[in-house]
Amino acid sequence: MKKDKEHVIFDLDDTLVHCNVHFLRVRRNFVEQMLRWFGRGGVTGREIWATQSRIDLEQVEKGGLQKDHFPQSLVETYRIFCKRFGRKAEPEEERSLLALGYRVYESPVILYPYARESLEELRDRGHVLYLYTGGDPEVQLRKLEQSGLSRFFDPERRFVTPFKDRVRLGELLHQFDLPAGSAWMVGNSLRSDILPALELGLTAIHVPEEQPWEFDHAVIPESYYSRLHQVSGLREVPAVIIGERGVAG
Amino acid sequence: MKKDKEHVIFDLDDTLVHCNVHFLRVRRNFVEQMLRWFGRGGVTGREIWATQSRIDLEQVEKGGLQKDHFPQSLVETYRIFCKRFGRKAEPEEERSLLALGYRVYESPVILYPYARESLEELRDRGHVLYLYTGGDPEVQLRKLEQSGLSRFFDPERRFVTPFKDRVRLGELLHQFDLPAGSAWMVGNSLRSDILPALELGLTAIHVPEEQPWEFDHAVIPESYYSRLHQVSGLREVPAVIIGERGVAG
Repeated sequence: MKKDKEHVIFDLDDTLVHCNVHFLRVRRNFVEQMLRWFGRGGVTGREIWATQSRIDLEQVEKGGLQKDHFPQSLVETYRIFCKRFGRKAEPEEERSLLALGYRVYESPVILYPYARESLEELRDRGHVLYLYTGGDPEVQLRKLEQSGLSRFFDPERRFVTPFKDRVRLGELLHQFDLPAGSAWMVGNSLRSDILPALELGLTAIHVPEEQPWEFDHAVIPESYYSRLHQVSGLREVPAVIIGERGVAG
Repeated sequence: MKKDKEHVIFDLDDTLVHCNVHFLRVRRNFVEQMLRWFGRGGVTGREIWATQSRIDLEQVEKGGLQKDHFPQSLVETYRIFCKRFGRKAEPEEERSLLALGYRVYESPVILYPYARESLEELRDRGHVLYLYTGGDPEVQLRKLEQSGLSRFFDPERRFVTPFKDRVRLGELLHQFDLPAGSAWMVGNSLRSDILPALELGLTAIHVPEEQPWEFDHAVIPESYYSRLHQVSGLREVPAVIIGERGVAG
């Protein structure tokens, strides 16, 4: 039997609004451009992709989700291949790669199906909604406005942080004096959303993606499975929270 | 300037011979079968895929690469969805899923391009080759025979282990009294091949895959980049080791 009022913490990127798809598009453009410059030297797209991915992930691991990391990873990848082929790194070309990288932050905001409807249903039933998202505050809060979802999250219940981990999520619980047992985390990332929530005693709803970002991977210990629900999409989230769907997947 | 005789440790699966592609095929068959049983309940393929993946990775994390894990993960996924929909788990259906799972180990052995040529070139130049592979000894050594690559690896230089990690790789180095500085690791897995090798002081050659397995992901600290080479395929491996390609990617 569920309590009347649940506290539901939502991730933003690739849970409520599309994000990876914009990065994937820019990364594909980047690889195409790099192949025009270096392809005749025998480099393949796969190698360029893996190098950029490695540098990007290393930066995120060290400095969290920061706006400049991704564009910089394109330039650093470019420099590595310039060095390998004894080609001079051209400032002009580096500037064009930076501009390409920053384009991800200007992408249109596209809602996932049932994002609005699910939030509406939860709010109308009196549940309290929190936004908990990784990244740059300016970028993330603009996305929230543009998506039309800002009305579901009171300004004091919006959290943007470069690192989404157990410490940060614990601070959020502490700030609102939320008992973990009455709090839910809804997100796509096993690493950033699901594992920290389960470790802290929350119940988690995983909305898996088709093309997960390498960074979002994590192994979930079996002992947590009883507090983990897996759903096909946002449409199912209210039913799980309201208690209509009992068994964790 | 390279020394005359280098020690080169090769991973097998998805470095020299195809592996993931067989698992992906069986997983797709599994999802299709599950959708026939549970699809009308509103379950999507993505959710089935994510559930199986979660269970499989949890098992590998705990018990290493064991032959029975993957078939069992199919049955456990089936049981989770049976439970959710109040459907009785049928022994007949479980047996058919087990059989489907074991089929991955009967898949034909397909070489990656230039596997034979690269090993040949290294051997002919006097380098010493080692095989270091994760999994079940019977399965892996049969693959080695069937692939025609067994002649490149002396029987005492073949290692099969359920866990490929720093400890195990360290034992290999110790057993042959190999100084890390003259040893190379060639593999596709950042987690199992590349990161442990770099941590132990070896030089690593990463041959990235198009569709990496979630388990193989790892973040490589930047301080190791100088000992990390990235190549487009096995064809480039001899040139890197012989020293014709100087700059690490």
